[in-house]
Amino acid sequence: MSFQLLQDVEIIRVTAEDAVTEQDVVVPEYALHLTVNGEELATLMCFPEALRELITGFLIAEGLVRDLTMIRSIRIDEERGEASVTLSGEAELPLRLYGNRTIQAGCGSPPLFPRTLESIRARVLPEGPPVAVSVIMDSMRAFQGQSGLYGRTGGVHSAAMVHRGKIVIFRDDVGRHNAVDKVAGEAAMKGVPRDECVLLSSGRISSDLVTKAAVHGIPVVASRSAPTGRAVEIARMLKLGLAGFVRGKRMNIYAGAERFVLP
Amino acid sequence: MSFQLLQDVEIIRVTAEDAVTEQDVVVPEYALHLTVNGEELATLMCFPEALRELITGFLIAEGLVRDLTMIRSIRIDEERGEASVTLSGEAELPLRLYGNRTIQAGCGSPPLFPRTLESIRARVLPEGPPVAVSVIMDSMRAFQGQSGLYGRTGGVHSAAMVHRGKIVIFRDDVGRHNAVDKVAGEAAMKGVPRDECVLLSSGRISSDLVTKAAVHGIPVVASRSAPTGRAVEIARMLKLGLAGFVRGKRMNIYAGAERFVLP
Repeated sequence: MSFQLLQDVEIIRVTAEDAVTEQDVVVPEYALHLTVNGEELATLMCFPEALRELITGFLIAEGLVRDLTMIRSIRIDEERGEASVTLSGEAELPLRLYGNRTIQAGCGSPPLFPRTLESIRARVLPEGPPVAVSVIMDSMRAFQGQSGLYGRTGGVHSAAMVHRGKIVIFRDDVGRHNAVDKVAGEAAMKGVPRDECVLLSSGRISSDLVTKAAVHGIPVVASRSAPTGRAVEIARMLKLGLAGFVRGKRMNIYAGAERFVLP
Repeated sequence: MSFQLLQDVEIIRVTAEDAVTEQDVVVPEYALHLTVNGEELATLMCFPEALRELITGFLIAEGLVRDLTMIRSIRIDEERGEASVTLSGEAELPLRLYGNRTIQAGCGSPPLFPRTLESIRARVLPEGPPVAVSVIMDSMRAFQGQSGLYGRTGGVHSAAMVHRGKIVIFRDDVGRHNAVDKVAGEAAMKGVPRDECVLLSSGRISSDLVTKAAVHGIPVVASRSAPTGRAVEIARMLKLGLAGFVRGKRMNIYAGAERFVLP
């Protein structure tokens, strides 16, 4: 059952008046490395429940199998995050067309150039002046009303760069990740120092979004929505400030408490 | 400005009492094919605004450039959806590590095996008995309260298979796409006929999600949220029933009206 799978994290729960350390839970984001007929096929970033169902659905969706008789066996090592699938001879042509490449697939656009934890470690963010939680709460309020495109279509995510207490760049996109690349790219083009910015996102914060912010050199990420467990772990490793559930006069700090001025 | 970029669509706006054909707008989902130093690098599924900013941010996030001096030129052909980037000699090593592969990156997990429109056309869904809009509204209501994991963490998407008016399979995941693969995979394993099901999703409906449903042979997709323009186009091409903004006693039908029994 799902609840045993929740990940405990210590957070700082912030209101207008105080900040209290509490235990909370986040959803784990689990890396499942999938090998098919002895070749690495994909890494699925997923919630670790119903893995056999996920693999079966994924193989069908990717066009590798038409029906279950083509799947000879699925062996899952939950501890190591590895699944090994044997497909029947019929699947050999689609497998050959796939080629020999490993790609991440998850809850967002994966980086094309898959990163190991080691390569991410090199992205530890330098210290900088902390940002007042009131600045984050106020800019999130301004942020939420800003997307006319969301108001018209309901079909986009937004991202913004906050510099010296103000939203200086705002963009929409059909993808959370694209919206972040747009505002970070625009900051680079306009000479806005990304290492002095707070990144606001309208979407959930998965590990690849935290990694993307870190590669852009942005030291603080804030969202109205929830982070995954792996996003919290990576943010802590990189000393990135991570705030979630920023709503009204409340927010949760999941990582990098030293990046925030608490009430 | 964004609003000129909105895509007009004819929809059927359904309430408990009636169904009226109206004009509406959806957000376009635009394919931008990115070539770097003469090699195809990626296809970004995006909202077609701030493309130069998107490309710049993407190149930084992927580790191909450290600063803008490494970008010699970016040429964008908006009509054809093509961008051609020239990077300085310094970028040659990271580019070589990338290898010569084209990958889609967008608002969700792209199919690993990129599909052309031609190959998708082969997935046109067969006719079947239509489903009453009241069944979709009622199951969406049950669906929304069902995720204890969402209630605890706010960090997951859900998907469900509705068969003969009832939710028979329900799954959560950190990714919209994984949740769909889990319920479709489970349906295949349990022998639930996917061609008689309605797929419910908690997330926005992008083109890759519609394609995934079609490959699984699911004829109707319904969401509480919005579809993109490309999702609507592909659903129409494949004769897939597509309902969005299913909330209370209201919903919009974007494609495959013949799959629904209207009030």
